[in-house]
Amino acid sequence: MSRYGFLGPEGTFTSMALDAWQPAAAGERVTFGSVDAALTALRSGAIDGAMVPIENSVEGGVSATLDALASGEPLVVVGEVLVPVTFVLAATSGTTLRDVHAVGTHSHAWAQVRGWMAAHLPGAEYVATLSTASAAEALEHGRQPYEAAVCAPAAAQRHGLEVLASGIGDMQAAVTRFVLVARPGELPARTGADKTTVVLFQREDHAGGLLELLEQFAARGINMTRLESRPTKDSMGSYCFSIDLEGHVLDERLGEALMGLKRICAEVRFLGSYPRADRQRATVAPLTSDADFSAARAWLDGIRSGGS
Amino acid sequence: MSRYGFLGPEGTFTSMALDAWQPAAAGERVTFGSVDAALTALRSGAIDGAMVPIENSVEGGVSATLDALASGEPLVVVGEVLVPVTFVLAATSGTTLRDVHAVGTHSHAWAQVRGWMAAHLPGAEYVATLSTASAAEALEHGRQPYEAAVCAPAAAQRHGLEVLASGIGDMQAAVTRFVLVARPGELPARTGADKTTVVLFQREDHAGGLLELLEQFAARGINMTRLESRPTKDSMGSYCFSIDLEGHVLDERLGEALMGLKRICAEVRFLGSYPRADRQRATVAPLTSDADFSAARAWLDGIRSGGS
Amino acid sequence: MSRYGFLGPEGTFTSMALDAWQPAAAGERVTFGSVDAALTALRSGAIDGAMVPIENSVEGGVSATLDALASGEPLVVVGEVLVPVTFVLAATSGTTLRDVHAVGTHSHAWAQVRGWMAAHLPGAEYVATLSTASAAEALEHGRQPYEAAVCAPAAAQRHGLEVLASGIGDMQAAVTRFVLVARPGELPARTGADKTTVVLFQREDHAGGLLELLEQFAARGINMTRLESRPTKDSMGSYCFSIDLEGHVLDERLGEALMGLKRICAEVRFLGSYPRADRQRATVAPLTSDADFSAARAWLDGIRSGGS
Amino acid sequence: MSRYGFLGPEGTFTSMALDAWQPAAAGERVTFGSVDAALTALRSGAIDGAMVPIENSVEGGVSATLDALASGEPLVVVGEVLVPVTFVLAATSGTTLRDVHAVGTHSHAWAQVRGWMAAHLPGAEYVATLSTASAAEALEHGRQPYEAAVCAPAAAQRHGLEVLASGIGDMQAAVTRFVLVARPGELPARTGADKTTVVLFQREDHAGGLLELLEQFAARGINMTRLESRPTKDSMGSYCFSIDLEGHVLDERLGEALMGLKRICAEVRFLGSYPRADRQRATVAPLTSDADFSAARAWLDGIRSGGS
Repeated sequence: MSRYGFLGPEGTFTSMALDAWQPAAAGERVTFGSVDAALTALRSGAIDGAMVPIENSVEGGVSATLDALASGEPLVVVGEVLVPVTFVLAATSGTTLRDVHAVGTHSHAWAQVRGWMAAHLPGAEYVATLSTASAAEALEHGRQPYEAAVCAPAAAQRHGLEVLASGIGDMQAAVTRFVLVARPGELPARTGADKTTVVLFQREDHAGGLLELLEQFAARGINMTRLESRPTKDSMGSYCFSIDLEGHVLDERLGEALMGLKRICAEVRFLGSYPRADRQRATVAPLTSDADFSAARAWLDGIRSGGS
Repeated sequence: MSRYGFLGPEGTFTSMALDAWQPAAAGERVTFGSVDAALTALRSGAIDGAMVPIENSVEGGVSATLDALASGEPLVVVGEVLVPVTFVLAATSGTTLRDVHAVGTHSHAWAQVRGWMAAHLPGAEYVATLSTASAAEALEHGRQPYEAAVCAPAAAQRHGLEVLASGIGDMQAAVTRFVLVARPGELPARTGADKTTVVLFQREDHAGGLLELLEQFAARGINMTRLESRPTKDSMGSYCFSIDLEGHVLDERLGEALMGLKRICAEVRFLGSYPRADRQRATVAPLTSDADFSAARAWLDGIRSGGS
Repeated sequence: MSRYGFLGPEGTFTSMALDAWQPAAAGERVTFGSVDAALTALRSGAIDGAMVPIENSVEGGVSATLDALASGEPLVVVGEVLVPVTFVLAATSGTTLRDVHAVGTHSHAWAQVRGWMAAHLPGAEYVATLSTASAAEALEHGRQPYEAAVCAPAAAQRHGLEVLASGIGDMQAAVTRFVLVARPGELPARTGADKTTVVLFQREDHAGGLLELLEQFAARGINMTRLESRPTKDSMGSYCFSIDLEGHVLDERLGEALMGLKRICAEVRFLGSYPRADRQRATVAPLTSDADFSAARAWLDGIRSGGS
Repeated sequence: MSRYGFLGPEGTFTSMALDAWQPAAAGERVTFGSVDAALTALRSGAIDGAMVPIENSVEGGVSATLDALASGEPLVVVGEVLVPVTFVLAATSGTTLRDVHAVGTHSHAWAQVRGWMAAHLPGAEYVATLSTASAAEALEHGRQPYEAAVCAPAAAQRHGLEVLASGIGDMQAAVTRFVLVARPGELPARTGADKTTVVLFQREDHAGGLLELLEQFAARGINMTRLESRPTKDSMGSYCFSIDLEGHVLDERLGEALMGLKRICAEVRFLGSYPRADRQRATVAPLTSDADFSAARAWLDGIRSGGS
């Protein structure tokens, strides 16, 4: 890969995630105005990878990303990056809190500073921007209907803004998880500390539902680390499930679980196996190691050949 | 109840939901700028009920509502309303599509017209507003940084706007589900076509997880009609589950399931039992009727008294 | 109770079980020729209790007892006794192994000494008797078609026989479990170290079967200590299940499980709650204590009254 | 195969089962005095097959057969035969019911005529014999301590006995199921109407128990047609499970279930896949056909190669 897309401009949390992604260090960086735009460019071949937010510890799953991956031409996740989320309120030099009647930022950022705003700027109007960094950028250029921006400290610095207040997020330990998305190709190698992402679409005519799907994981000792239900947009109450699993598709237990799901689901969309950002090795439940599966397969082959 | 809050101004989809709520016909209507603001007023006693969006057939659960109900002073849902969602692009008289460089609307509405915008106004900038109706209202008063608004047909009409394009939602059959929220008090009566909403918080030290929770419903033949996972905001990967169930808390099967959950969850938050908007009666699985439960209880009482 | 029946004559393992049953110490002892005969007398009121074998660590469940309890007028178990099983080969004075061409004993005893017999008396014919003690008794009176009996050491002594070989059981640690059966009446008090015995009859038209029944126990952390399938005698492949559970019917978790089974089974036959012979206290799984159930019930009652 | 063992003499129900086994028509017939003796000869190579009873619709599993197959050198079932069980009371010419003070027969037969005996010969003593046919044979030769035998009509005829009463079984539709056992070798071909027999030994240190084992079948839509628990003879309460399944080990769903059990059990003993006597084709649950499994496997292979 050599061209990497991200939600720009430079200074967004997404750009910080891309900074942290080693393989992109020598590549070209291409900014996009939305997750959709970046993934469309990726599908067309204009770029080779895209860094996009998928989950936030405060706001939950990022709908735009989840939905863009769940339909359309297949894309896969090949890596993940965790970025601590720290917000500042920034403005041009000389501005004070009293001067702030409107605040610009991305809607996800706004949701995470509601508590601080209610306490300190209860009358401030909210103006949505395409990203936290663009809110800061616009302030620098003076063409925006707000007096202060909520953004990352780096963005404030990049655009020559003063910090009116820092650490204004309602949750001090907020983290956003980003994933590096690519077109399907060679699978990332197994590291023993991997995650696998899938989207499961239920059969309408099949009772039992989610319980039956989860049993496929439980029966093989596989942990879920994220579960999101998303409407399939056909009708109210029709959902698919976006799920992260501990383990790699090359692990026997995970392969068998996916085959089970493939049989009982209307569709299973594989969204990649990739190393965990936290390098935490999967806990392999007793009797579910690759060796356990191989021994069972060898035994069955023996029996089927007339042995015992 | 006599004072009803809703996300204003008049002309929003929420106001249309309140229009459809019979018990509010003779009550006073109070507008609020956000779901949070309405529920805060409800908790304080300033209003007696609040109509808020909870789920959209395109965008999924409404995070602000789900989170506001899942924490803080207890509130309960006492009814629900379904509103078909139809969007128009509206502007002041004389405006043409060519004149539109920016479009104002609520972010949820914007998400539902992305396809149309990409096809017809690919260069238009998005400006977030507090509601679809306020986007239209601002146009009427000429104090906004956009030339057109995405809103309901009724809002365009109310504010004297011309419709540049109608039916611009990407999904033609989109529906939003609203709920009437109140302070806990008398339960709505059982109608046989009821829903119950709960939020389940898992014990951290308890393996098995979601599967175990869902088994409590499956064992008693109870259907789920909605499942949302929401971060508990403590740390990445810590979730609670917001769930709608078929049936009323006074149904034996549902009561027993909730007791089971109360035992194994860290917390079960009851968010109300109320009549379904679609009046569709619950399918009672064989052997799970109230009569079945009562007969079993009578039998057990007999045995415990030394019978057989 | 004052009249106790047992499989006689004195000297059988069953008589040893009755010896060990304290409450019978001052009662009258009545011998019967079969389990059926003893239980018939109990049902008719001729006796007040009957000591019968129910399970052997080598041979498994005692069919005659299991079937007699599973149908007919209800009877309940009120206590259990464990008797170590030690066999001797006994004959009248002067007899040697060489003289033994046929051996008399009860068929269950014969099954437990097959290994010894194959090694030491491979040509000996087997003659069935109604009990091990009656095999010894007949030898004393000289009216039997065999030269030696397999019986308990006590029976050999009682009838003046010589022991040709002792400890001839194939399993050194064999134990037989006996139960004291009575007509339904007052339940034995809870001791915290109790067992409950039930027979479950499946609904023919209900898929899922045994798995579904066992889930009722698993969902409440209840351990099974015995499971026997028994044909219901209607047709090949139609089974009922005879089950021992840890706990007392007055325990909340067990009561709720039995109610669940009552709903989904064609019939649940309660065969008693009684103190364990080994005084081993039940392991109460986390979140399944009576206090947990009571707290959940109180919470539900609050909600149903309009609380939260 | 050319030499077939069975529980003799000719005239037993087992001999009738062997009569009905087509492949044995041209073979040599060898009688044995017990199931154990026949299976020992089979293991040693002295015979090539053995017909033994495994299950009776009234009495349940045949312990001697179940235990002999569950341990020792491996043997497998290669076929099954169902024999209706009809009993007559037979005696030498001139004998009347009044003359009968003792009755000889096999203990399993005795258990099935207890009701008739209690009604018509309440005072008759029971004398155990090695088989029903040998009870009849002994009468013919006049060297037995009883006046009448309970046996099959064919045995009465063969030994020139008169029938004092016929149809004396307590269950009119009783059936015994026999299996043809052989040393492991080529598997019987799949017919689409097959059974598979296994013995499962639980891990002592593994919670969940039988439920977890049964879930392996349920998850793949596999029906059980027989389940017997048998003590493993180590200690009271330690059981293994003898199970018959619908389907052949070459079926994908059954192979995968057995691999799952192999992983989680201490031991899985395979006792053969063979055509059903009743030719009833297996009901393949939706989504569990071989084609479903193959499609899932092909899909997984594609993903593992970097596809999607």
